[in-house]
Amino acid sequence: MNIAPYERLLLAVDFAPETESVVARAQQLTDHCQARLVLLHVVEHLPMSYSGDLILPDDFDLEQELVEVAKKQMTALGDRLRVPHEDRHIEIGTTGRTILRLSAELKVDLIILGSHGRHGLAALLGSTARTVLNGADCDVLAVRIKE
Amino acid sequence: MNIAPYERLLLAVDFAPETESVVARAQQLTDHCQARLVLLHVVEHLPMSYSGDLILPDDFDLEQELVEVAKKQMTALGDRLRVPHEDRHIEIGTTGRTILRLSAELKVDLIILGSHGRHGLAALLGSTARTVLNGADCDVLAVRIKE
Repeated sequence: MNIAPYERLLLAVDFAPETESVVARAQQLTDHCQARLVLLHVVEHLPMSYSGDLILPDDFDLEQELVEVAKKQMTALGDRLRVPHEDRHIEIGTTGRTILRLSAELKVDLIILGSHGRHGLAALLGSTARTVLNGADCDVLAVRIKE
Repeated sequence: MNIAPYERLLLAVDFAPETESVVARAQQLTDHCQARLVLLHVVEHLPMSYSGDLILPDDFDLEQELVEVAKKQMTALGDRLRVPHEDRHIEIGTTGRTILRLSAELKVDLIILGSHGRHGLAALLGSTARTVLNGADCDVLAVRIKE
């Protein structure tokens, strides 16, 4: 009767060093539940007001550039956590809604929120957390980042 | 390297039948982590506007009456989950702040929110959840109640 509470976890990662404790917690839960861990990084659409102010070469695609950087970070993290390639996701969109969409698609049963300073627990109930907590069909674990 | 992610869980219970899935999840996590489970029920202070409208005998203490009802429900739940008596808590106060206080006192490492319709996930980011998520020194698990 010692059934693992969760089988498929989704960890929303932003690769910030201060979220290492969140990654560690996700790995611990994955190991302990012998679960499958899905990694998701969302590249947010850039607000027009920002991109309009940047002076960039005509052929420079900033969003695509951010995706390329994310791919390298995802490879490093995925390799370290031994997450299979098909469970490493990089998406462009709104973080909260993208987390919900992928979690539903993959029938995830626990979403783990990795949040750092900017979107961090001090501001946990920012739009991402609010969207995920209100909209998720599964459980949501908010991991506390120690300052 | 299969260390349990959590050692001491606090489940906020309101004894509503629809929160049975939350209780089940807490028990599953407790078993799986071989953790200690602390049960907490908070009897909220009654708003003056309500109690002023109630016609009650002079010697009737409604708050105390609610505590007595809660004690019976806590006994039934605690016995069923085999939670030792010292880990069954009934407190009078504000739910969110009481959860935070007891969690800190008992050095809980995971707070599990049992929320039903009234304070439920549809309104998860009501004051209790907001208080707990913003103020907790530990992780918080929001368990989805299936409608």
